[in-house]
Amino acid sequence: MTDTAPRPVVTAFDWVPEFARGLVRDLRVRWALEEIGRAYDSELLSARTERPEDYLARQPFNQVPAFRDGELNIFETGAILLYLGERDERLLPAAGQPRWDAIAWLFSALNSVEPVVQRITSYDLFHKDKPWMPDAREASLGLCKQKLKRVADALEGKDWLAGTFSVADIAMITVLNNLRHTDLVAEYPALAEYKARGEARPAYKRALDAQYADFTTEPA
Amino acid sequence: MTDTAPRPVVTAFDWVPEFARGLVRDLRVRWALEEIGRAYDSELLSARTERPEDYLARQPFNQVPAFRDGELNIFETGAILLYLGERDERLLPAAGQPRWDAIAWLFSALNSVEPVVQRITSYDLFHKDKPWMPDAREASLGLCKQKLKRVADALEGKDWLAGTFSVADIAMITVLNNLRHTDLVAEYPALAEYKARGEARPAYKRALDAQYADFTTEPA
Repeated sequence: MTDTAPRPVVTAFDWVPEFARGLVRDLRVRWALEEIGRAYDSELLSARTERPEDYLARQPFNQVPAFRDGELNIFETGAILLYLGERDERLLPAAGQPRWDAIAWLFSALNSVEPVVQRITSYDLFHKDKPWMPDAREASLGLCKQKLKRVADALEGKDWLAGTFSVADIAMITVLNNLRHTDLVAEYPALAEYKARGEARPAYKRALDAQYADFTTEPA
Repeated sequence: MTDTAPRPVVTAFDWVPEFARGLVRDLRVRWALEEIGRAYDSELLSARTERPEDYLARQPFNQVPAFRDGELNIFETGAILLYLGERDERLLPAAGQPRWDAIAWLFSALNSVEPVVQRITSYDLFHKDKPWMPDAREASLGLCKQKLKRVADALEGKDWLAGTFSVADIAMITVLNNLRHTDLVAEYPALAEYKARGEARPAYKRALDAQYADFTTEPA
């Protein structure tokens, strides 16, 4: 990578409501890029206007982020993290069991943990005044806690999910942060310590600052 | 790969209730192995007894499947599919934009589509008699339909998500099959045709037969 390589581009929002700040998924990509010291540009989508017509070709679910590196376009944070990890061992071990442990935990964060976390956050943030919400939330809570406990147990004796820091931790810690309005993570001290360990990394702080700095538009 | 290479091992269940047959996730791994004609062994976990104590070391969420290939252990179907895909271009293009398109769609199936599909199936299968269920289901249905429509739109002019058949299709089609008790997929003809196209593949049928053949235990 030379200084003349094109800077990768990450799409992000120019405004989101307070409850979503620090949770928008471009943070995952920014964090990975900050870990390897790779400069990037953010391309801001307007909170007030429709997405550009061609955006669906870059991000078929019309979400943030989409990612571009030179000629290559990638969507889904898991895929973008894997792409960056394959190019830098500070983000993903190069081969063998350590590589597959990190990839398995990357998928775990996104397919075993995030879905149950999302149910809780969806109830709390988008349906909190619905009469059916408390019962529905309660019915999902056991599964969420079970997954959190499994992750906490797996962290026993380890600082990071795959031994060394990797994109799996970027995914898992940003997934866990969706529960920041609850005490759920705090119920598992190993998990709370792990999350704090990740969020203490300078690269995380730089990524978070950069996401917030892009919220430049006043709400309508 | 020679005939003397060790056969990979996939964990599966020796019994599940009728509603789960054909949906247990070892099917994804069996399907990929069948596509490339690689013989494997299933290692059956009992539906009646606890998992072996060391199983959590192989599958930290205590679920099926775990996968072993020689000395390598991998959990999470997404990771196992990626591993098999990296070793055979019939499952994943080797490089460039086609490779990352397939990987992005693999993550899409598991992180953008499966979570919203799971909510619907969870309500229908595990909470169907709860008084709060119809309202909670209705509140999730819009998001589920939105994702299904996005996938259907992305399939326009294509037989498979990434152009050629790949592990992304194995993931997406098995995710969609969780809605088989509903008419949701049929609401999007392109999606229904896509699913039928995948399930018509001989490798899918062999994988399905193999999963069913392993349900050898009578229920307690």
